[in-house]
Amino acid sequence: ISLRSLGVEQHCRCIQTESKPIGRHIEKVELILPTSHCEETEIIATLKKTGEEVCLNPEAPWVKKVINKIMSNRRR
Amino acid sequence: ISLRSLGVEQHCRCIQTESKPIGRHIEKVELILPTSHCEETEIIATLKKTGEEVCLNPEAPWVKKVINKIMSNRRR
Repeated sequence: ISLRSLGVEQHCRCIQTESKPIGRHIEKVELILPTSHCEETEIIATLKKTGEEVCLNPEAPWVKKVINKIMSNRRR
Repeated sequence: ISLRSLGVEQHCRCIQTESKPIGRHIEKVELILPTSHCEETEIIATLKKTGEEVCLNPEAPWVKKVINKIMSNRRR
């Protein structure tokens, strides 16, 4: 059993981040806080349809807007 | 192979949400947008140390603050 198979990440997961505003294609967003293994906040979006995982830049204004929009959604 | 094993959730994942402000124990947060299978925005936090998954209420002020804090973290 590897640490990785237990879900323990030992390094940063993001090498590069998506620059295009792909907010409308996002199904799920993971916000990962800094740890001893990765000192940056990482944001990983999962896309609708393809399920592709894409890293987003936490400092990009469009990314902040996407998160704010998700958080302001009301129950229907 | 079940749909679930492929990571396809067919219903809401959260039954109840955490009421206590546990922001400092959070390692990772998943924001899951509404789909045809679950019409609510779901927030699932993974806790440090235990790795326990806890559902959070997207409308709770302390939850919004936790998300805002994560988003405003600067690189070190």
